[in-house]
Amino acid sequence: MKKFIAEINVMPLKALLDPQGKAVNLSMHNIGFKTVDNVRIGKHITIEIEALNENIAKEKVDEACKKILSNPIMEYFEFSIKEV
Amino acid sequence: MKKFIAEINVMPLKALLDPQGKAVNLSMHNIGFKTVDNVRIGKHITIEIEALNENIAKEKVDEACKKILSNPIMEYFEFSIKEV
Repeated sequence: MKKFIAEINVMPLKALLDPQGKAVNLSMHNIGFKTVDNVRIGKHITIEIEALNENIAKEKVDEACKKILSNPIMEYFEFSIKEV
Repeated sequence: MKKFIAEINVMPLKALLDPQGKAVNLSMHNIGFKTVDNVRIGKHITIEIEALNENIAKEKVDEACKKILSNPIMEYFEFSIKEV
């Protein structure tokens, strides 16, 4: 078994309003970051996973993202995997 | 002015317990992902920023991370910037 680290981003769908991002955007303007726009905030998840090879690890992570780590009604995910 | 997109990760410090990550780790084991370990959950933030050049954009994002986007007592941050 090899060990991999997956770096997963789970972000609010682009079509949806992101209230947390909007609030941070406003706060940034208020403290002087005027050239900032379109702040969006999601989750960054790192996972260690053991698998026979990289393809199996990718399948597992994809399945985990769909089953438990993201809500497809409101979020999309993307991830990368590297061996450690 | 050029426009850049910054991709920022704000993660719980490695020395600290991450209760959210621990909970997800346990849930993943419970639904059958037995080879998963060391789940850590932080924030992924994307920001559009206008600046004269990439170095200035980097400085701004670094300053924003320190001032408003992360809590150095509990979190560290890392980011990358690309022009759009």
